[in-house]
Amino acid sequence: MQEEIYKSPKKRGKIAVFLSGRGSNFLALSDAVQSGSINADIALVFSNKKAAPGLLHAREMGLKTLYLRPKNFDSREAYDERLAEEAKKIEIDLICLAGYMKILTPGLCRKFKNKIINIHPALLPSFPGLHVQQKAIDWGVRFSGATVHFVEAEVDMGPIIIQAVVPVEQDDTEETLSARILKEEHKIYPEAVRLYFEGRLEVRERRVFIT
Amino acid sequence: MQEEIYKSPKKRGKIAVFLSGRGSNFLALSDAVQSGSINADIALVFSNKKAAPGLLHAREMGLKTLYLRPKNFDSREAYDERLAEEAKKIEIDLICLAGYMKILTPGLCRKFKNKIINIHPALLPSFPGLHVQQKAIDWGVRFSGATVHFVEAEVDMGPIIIQAVVPVEQDDTEETLSARILKEEHKIYPEAVRLYFEGRLEVRERRVFIT
Repeated sequence: MQEEIYKSPKKRGKIAVFLSGRGSNFLALSDAVQSGSINADIALVFSNKKAAPGLLHAREMGLKTLYLRPKNFDSREAYDERLAEEAKKIEIDLICLAGYMKILTPGLCRKFKNKIINIHPALLPSFPGLHVQQKAIDWGVRFSGATVHFVEAEVDMGPIIIQAVVPVEQDDTEETLSARILKEEHKIYPEAVRLYFEGRLEVRERRVFIT
Repeated sequence: MQEEIYKSPKKRGKIAVFLSGRGSNFLALSDAVQSGSINADIALVFSNKKAAPGLLHAREMGLKTLYLRPKNFDSREAYDERLAEEAKKIEIDLICLAGYMKILTPGLCRKFKNKIINIHPALLPSFPGLHVQQKAIDWGVRFSGATVHFVEAEVDMGPIIIQAVVPVEQDDTEETLSARILKEEHKIYPEAVRLYFEGRLEVRERRVFIT
């Protein structure tokens, strides 16, 4: 059987950012786009929450935004199908999840295979899921960090693009550890998107090679 | 309910090292004992393998050694009961697992609660079990490392004493990554035992505080 290899495109890309909250990673991406370090435009900021501060912020910045009310759809599948249509309509190349708190349906993951990335505030495969900074503290690990990864249907399990490590201090609270990790997130997420549109990410099996 | 706190003893300790192979971590511990950085003596080197190079090495060094043939015992429980008796007889304070490839019975873990430590060549809770360097490579993580932890009945899940991080390089093989991790193991295992007999490890719930 031949190994399937995916190579990210070298092009000026169109990014959609999905968020449910303040979207601090959206702002980090937006800064990198504006400074020219990412060869892409943010063509859409989408939210499942009408009052998400990140969505309001995007609107103020003059970016195209979209809110879809989950209650208006019969199912998660119908919601994500509509979302995929909207993204295809404007020819989105890459979806960047930035605190998007709705689990993507397998259908959406398939339609955008290797075209959705996420950032997770832990060193995956340690601590998938939610409230992972507190979990890291409670578990007693000496290091945690952040992971940028491709999104697959199984949550927090897709191929890893970049990770960053931070120490966990003995007197850390969820807040102090989260802040230390977030600082790294804001570095590695733009870096991963930069590499993506430089055509430098090569996915083989579940490994990502930076070429 | 009052929180149960364990404090490691401040004393000149007696260590038993359990190994099944070459026991490179046994040698790292032995060096630290000889240099005086660990306040303890290696009072016993035990193996479940008659021809374990580490056991032969210990004998050449003039250390007390013990081999128990698993086939001579009716059950794992009987084996570990005998082992516990031997360890109690010479008043062992701390059992250091150094590549001991036999899973300890819950009975032995209970008898030596907070008195057994292990080193694992990964950043737990990522990659418990065996062949974990290859697993880290296959998974595509950017960092791995080593973990010294207290041993509980559930394998590789006890409270973490020290961890060390190493990068995983794109061209790493199981051998090159193992070698990089082993170098760290040889630093943090003696360090953990040093802290133990300085009375500086405090276990609360599943967290270890270094005081």
